[in-house]
Amino acid sequence: MPRIVMKFGGTSMAGIERIRNVADRVRREAQAGNEVLVVVSAMAGETDRLVQLCREAAALHDPKEYDVVVASGEQVTAGLLAMTLQNMGLNARSFMGWQLVRASGVHGNARVEAVESALLDEALGSGTVAVIPGFQGVSGEGRLATLGRGGSDTSAVALAAGVNADRCDIYTDVDGVYTTDPRIVPRARKLEAITFEEMLELAGVGAKVLQPRSVGLAMRENLPLRVLSAFEDKPGTRVVAELSGADMERHQIAGIAADRSEARITLTGIADRPGTLAAVVGPLAQAAIAFDMIVHAATPSAGASDLTFSVPRASLALALSTIEGRKAEIGYAELIHDSAVAKVSIVGVGIRSNPELAARMFDVLAERRINLLAVSASEIKLSVLVAEAEVDLAVRVLHSAFGLDEQAEPAGAAA
Amino acid sequence: MPRIVMKFGGTSMAGIERIRNVADRVRREAQAGNEVLVVVSAMAGETDRLVQLCREAAALHDPKEYDVVVASGEQVTAGLLAMTLQNMGLNARSFMGWQLVRASGVHGNARVEAVESALLDEALGSGTVAVIPGFQGVSGEGRLATLGRGGSDTSAVALAAGVNADRCDIYTDVDGVYTTDPRIVPRARKLEAITFEEMLELAGVGAKVLQPRSVGLAMRENLPLRVLSAFEDKPGTRVVAELSGADMERHQIAGIAADRSEARITLTGIADRPGTLAAVVGPLAQAAIAFDMIVHAATPSAGASDLTFSVPRASLALALSTIEGRKAEIGYAELIHDSAVAKVSIVGVGIRSNPELAARMFDVLAERRINLLAVSASEIKLSVLVAEAEVDLAVRVLHSAFGLDEQAEPAGAAA
Repeated sequence: MPRIVMKFGGTSMAGIERIRNVADRVRREAQAGNEVLVVVSAMAGETDRLVQLCREAAALHDPKEYDVVVASGEQVTAGLLAMTLQNMGLNARSFMGWQLVRASGVHGNARVEAVESALLDEALGSGTVAVIPGFQGVSGEGRLATLGRGGSDTSAVALAAGVNADRCDIYTDVDGVYTTDPRIVPRARKLEAITFEEMLELAGVGAKVLQPRSVGLAMRENLPLRVLSAFEDKPGTRVVAELSGADMERHQIAGIAADRSEARITLTGIADRPGTLAAVVGPLAQAAIAFDMIVHAATPSAGASDLTFSVPRASLALALSTIEGRKAEIGYAELIHDSAVAKVSIVGVGIRSNPELAARMFDVLAERRINLLAVSASEIKLSVLVAEAEVDLAVRVLHSAFGLDEQAEPAGAAA
Repeated sequence: MPRIVMKFGGTSMAGIERIRNVADRVRREAQAGNEVLVVVSAMAGETDRLVQLCREAAALHDPKEYDVVVASGEQVTAGLLAMTLQNMGLNARSFMGWQLVRASGVHGNARVEAVESALLDEALGSGTVAVIPGFQGVSGEGRLATLGRGGSDTSAVALAAGVNADRCDIYTDVDGVYTTDPRIVPRARKLEAITFEEMLELAGVGAKVLQPRSVGLAMRENLPLRVLSAFEDKPGTRVVAELSGADMERHQIAGIAADRSEARITLTGIADRPGTLAAVVGPLAQAAIAFDMIVHAATPSAGASDLTFSVPRASLALALSTIEGRKAEIGYAELIHDSAVAKVSIVGVGIRSNPELAARMFDVLAERRINLLAVSASEIKLSVLVAEAEVDLAVRVLHSAFGLDEQAEPAGAAA
């Protein structure tokens, strides 16, 4: 008998009427002959309310106590969904995170270590729908531990892996993964399928459909995901290890992402000698500042050069003071920064095998006279740093140029 | 070092400002050199909100899932209080009910079976304030189990017994136990001390300060309780095994209680033969109907008699149909009932040794021409059934006659 995990987000669980709608979907899957494990989020707004209470209680609070408070939201929805399912005539029961999910690492942002699957196997095997609060487990010390915001996705994937589920379906308030943000590009298209790697890169640069950690875990476990609407009957987007068959016909680029949380730092007139780069990068790494997109434009004739890189805007002040504190050691003329920048990325498994996609990206942006402040690349992602004012234009022209627009012109025109 | 348990009710925990007030009281006890264990209720209104969600989800719901939902309220306040205490510079941490309190019996109304005190001993012994959600524990099956409404009092007493506390203080929104309901008798007086037995009888007949089960448990464990205000610095009422010293000076009657949830049933013309009483009482007991105050007024000359007794109003319809179904077997002329009755009781350890208290009660009520529909007695309680319209008068005259009024006239006048 196929075994599936269904995960429902906070919007789908907000109130008894919506919980009944969720129960209807669960019933359909159970009656279609599946063994069903359901992972639920807290009602929309509830976690924020609980976090706010913690802040009011103490500005700086013990993450272990924070976990006790915020874990309660999913406990409530798990019990309510279980009784709603029973009321529909299904066998159903809730299990608590502390009964099943061993977590480790930092409280408030713990990782799933293991799933006690024996209890679940017994329940699922006997035709009982298991309902489990997402976002939480129990620490080695025996205390409640939460997995960080969005952690219910990770709970769902970890539980799916733990019970050897055939599939994990993530029900949410959007109906799938899009080629880009439809608010920027109205002709953004829903993808039928996307690879784990692509999903990770899209999540990493700003698409917020799935918690990145859950995608990484699904990739490691090779567990197929589906992202679909809790409110409409639509097929959604499959997230898989490799595209196959019809999916291969897809354009080489899966999507375009924009990330407005970047800032740019430039050091001018740094000495062209070994170790200069390390003198800058080392202290930043020590301060746990994520830096990216390093451009080192050497001008050998002058014996000095400029160094540009990007950091998260939230870390800008810390990054600047860190560098200023090392001025003598590093040796630079000026320290310049700019918060009005953003990163635009094209993501797709095609990039790996097709170097001309990068060339096309630069051409298209140059045609529109969009200035590239920095460039970085991974195997399946190409990112450029541009002025924030030019982000939307950059996303739109790239979306169109890579043939991603809904009802796009024939492939020839895009290629 | 003295070890105390402090229990705070929902009104004291309603919002962060009040939780800070609670934390202040806890700090004072800790800084006075006590080891402190705190048991908390959910914020006032929260349990009702959660119960309502369960009702909306399913009119008839699984008590195990109900427990999962409603247990969350105390979990939240426990975490919030722990972080508030830490913020004041105290060592504090929360423990969950499922880590410490083993419960048995019916879900939604479970009993405390045992307390895992090792963890608590370690925390308390090292100067850590332990904060524990009331009203809940874990069942033998490993599931969350709640103790029934008001169950946090029982949690507090069970935990106090489990850790061998010297005292258990119940902080509430009243400042102690009164001689009667101050809404009926404005001159009701706060008692300095009351015995467990008296407290049980007062609770059983309508005084709602402490959950009766918690009083019974404290009596069994011989654990002194105090009932006191969470909002004012007043001494409150001690609940103890035996009155001693100054307490003995107290009037022989501790208080007067009124219970308006009674109904009266009379069977007329029943045969005066052995087994008739059993034929009525047996089926009622089988239907789990609590009956009380049986008056069997036999008139031997006539060979028939009337049987009167009281039942809870909520059970009246069931009691009547149960008796009607046995009419042939019992043999009676008429079945009469009256819901407009109430039970008025005097409670005090003095009743045991002083039979003339009963006589005085009847005299006082007769003087005011209050008709007694039935009478019942236990070792320390005397109850009369009266017309509901006469309850307030009966309570007032008894309160005055037994010298309970605040600033009462000299004892001679009352005696």
